Amino acid sequence: MATVPLIEYEDAPADVRAVYDDIMRSRDLKRVNNFWKALANHPPTLKRTWESLKEVMADGALDPLVKELVYLAVSASNACEYCIHSHTAAARKLGASEAMIGELLAVAAMANETNALANGYQVPVDEGFKVAQ
Amino acid sequence: MATVPLIEYEDAPADVRAVYDDIMRSRDLKRVNNFWKALANHPPTLKRTWESLKEVMADGALDPLVKELVYLAVSASNACEYCIHSHTAAARKLGASEAMIGELLAVAAMANETNALANGYQVPVDEGFKVAQ
Amino acid sequence: MATVPLIEYEDAPADVRAVYDDIMRSRDLKRVNNFWKALANHPPTLKRTWESLKEVMADGALDPLVKELVYLAVSASNACEYCIHSHTAAARKLGASEAMIGELLAVAAMANETNALANGYQVPVDEGFKVAQ
Amino acid sequence: MATVPLIEYEDAPADVRAVYDDIMRSRDLKRVNNFWKALANHPPTLKRTWESLKEVMADGALDPLVKELVYLAVSASNACEYCIHSHTAAARKLGASEAMIGELLAVAAMANETNALANGYQVPVDEGFKVAQ
Amino acid sequence: MATVPLIEYEDAPADVRAVYDDIMRSRDLKRVNNFWKALANHPPTLKRTWESLKEVMADGALDPLVKELVYLAVSASNACEYCIHSHTAAARKLGASEAMIGELLAVAAMANETNALANGYQVPVDEGFKVAQ
Amino acid sequence: MATVPLIEYEDAPADVRAVYDDIMRSRDLKRVNNFWKALANHPPTLKRTWESLKEVMADGALDPLVKELVYLAVSASNACEYCIHSHTAAARKLGASEAMIGELLAVAAMANETNALANGYQVPVDEGFKVAQ
Repeated sequence: MATVPLIEYEDAPADVRAVYDDIMRSRDLKRVNNFWKALANHPPTLKRTWESLKEVMADGALDPLVKELVYLAVSASNACEYCIHSHTAAARKLGASEAMIGELLAVAAMANETNALANGYQVPVDEGFKVAQ
Repeated sequence: MATVPLIEYEDAPADVRAVYDDIMRSRDLKRVNNFWKALANHPPTLKRTWESLKEVMADGALDPLVKELVYLAVSASNACEYCIHSHTAAARKLGASEAMIGELLAVAAMANETNALANGYQVPVDEGFKVAQ
Repeated sequence: MATVPLIEYEDAPADVRAVYDDIMRSRDLKRVNNFWKALANHPPTLKRTWESLKEVMADGALDPLVKELVYLAVSASNACEYCIHSHTAAARKLGASEAMIGELLAVAAMANETNALANGYQVPVDEGFKVAQ
Repeated sequence: MATVPLIEYEDAPADVRAVYDDIMRSRDLKRVNNFWKALANHPPTLKRTWESLKEVMADGALDPLVKELVYLAVSASNACEYCIHSHTAAARKLGASEAMIGELLAVAAMANETNALANGYQVPVDEGFKVAQ
Repeated sequence: MATVPLIEYEDAPADVRAVYDDIMRSRDLKRVNNFWKALANHPPTLKRTWESLKEVMADGALDPLVKELVYLAVSASNACEYCIHSHTAAARKLGASEAMIGELLAVAAMANETNALANGYQVPVDEGFKVAQ
Repeated sequence: MATVPLIEYEDAPADVRAVYDDIMRSRDLKRVNNFWKALANHPPTLKRTWESLKEVMADGALDPLVKELVYLAVSASNACEYCIHSHTAAARKLGASEAMIGELLAVAAMANETNALANGYQVPVDEGFKVAQ
């Protein structure tokens, strides 16, 4: 259960509705997800988070599916139940196969394992990894 | 400074050398990185970690560059200095452009931000995200 | 569901009751929260944690509301469902407005984002930040 | 050492200089910190992060010093060396006393402790913490 | 609810059944736990994870109960609800008393507290802790 | 470099010296480590942390070496450079062999891996793991 009420479109003030409209239009949705309905309790966070997310997740040097998979990897590492569900669903909507999700979680999990090993032994960075400044 | 000595090839026992040889051959390297030289203090961990990593990072439903980028995203979230350096270098070696690394870190960072928001408000998972069992 | 039974006042041994009494008196509560009922399975942890918390959260150079907000920020970063609920409730009881909670979570989330960026690029600490020893 | 070159003002393209100028003006600085010089390798991240940070850290329902202290608390939990140094310095510049920093870190650390206890026992959320929807 | 179907023995392909059989035989179980039924959606991850876990958790320089307790400590720090439940149950099956679990969680929680303090103050490593290379 | 001065015995006020004396006596040391010299900037945190640690790490249902190993496992997961060095040194002083440290880090790392998998698939807790209340 959320620590704030989820704000539905019909109960939202004009500035929140404007963001909801943009989300539904951009993502081709009939209604916004609970994440946005919770953020709407603080309209500046709703607006800024949506605008940042729209920019960051847009097609660029990395395609949107790769970006969704990266989002899922980080969310799995951070134990964010909501985010794991929403980004798994988003990745599938963008065409992720079950094999892709399986490999993605295997890589993310392995990264958590070797992060603990590299930190646990305090391995010094190889000179060869460093970039010229 | 590592909490264990880094074991060089010439000082390594036969089972460690066999792993080092496979790493150098598979990755086309003249010598192994410090990570492996630290793990060599516990040969079963060296062997198992290398074999797991070789399997997980192989070309599959996701290509090796995407996997390196995912590795970097998780390592950045986990504050693993060694892993950030090694996987940034590995991603570049596989052809990652600076724009790709820039977008990758922007996505990873944004994921950390919205993970904290979704957790912070304890947003309930939308019914539509759930899969049929 | 907890991994241990929750110990109610009437079932508690004398040393646990003494801590429960102090919690209820200090916090002006009719009964202790589930957190304490779980810790009561290990009485030394119950006593030490309560005494530490009472000391740390007392009015001082920082006031109790700021301390509750900091607690919520850390709990949101750590995905502690229980703690997020309990410290949101505690902050509201101490007078936190919804705008304060909204700003607090925005700051905490942003910190998680820029932590990942600073770590992800391994930004070196500016000389100017360092204190004279 | 950063994984990217730090971009100095004199070597920066026009869009980066515009952000640097705004940072220096807003914060009354003679030059920007290394964090921004690293982000400048990906100008959209530089611009978006600065604009978000400027908005989030502005005076509001919470004052700027409280916000810096919250930032430090999260950064300490996340092991972000750069961020710990920069936000400790920023908090002091805004007037934080050593007693405030001491209490802040005590609260942040205690939150990490009880987060692990509440998660470790999987304590169920008290009914009384839940908000009416 | 899992993001993938849980694969029961009767619906599993031969390679998955072979792993299930080995798990049930090694652990003396009538059926495998949900963790394995989820991993079975990606058979290479199922097989590799089980083989790694079997090797890592075997009796060695540390006994299996100590290993389960360490697993629980890390899982509590990482907010992994499933893992906290499964490793608490496993530790009890191996003979962990309630006092042992109580002390274990107290140590794990305290480690999270002092980690935040040592990081928060950026305490430099004592020369005396460093090993000769 | 620490964000605070490290306070040496000769410069310490009486309440800090009293804690230093107890640490040196209890641990049979000639001088206290840097961790305590940093905490001494906030004497109540120094005193409370030392007293808690002394209680938590004492011999009990778990022996001190197991407790040090658990501490190291959590510290490795949390990327606490100082704590990894100090608790590796402490474990060795209590008799930990290199094989024990190797196995410990292998278990801790594996826990981080399977935590990410269990969270990443959102595996539901098995009924059999739950305790009767």
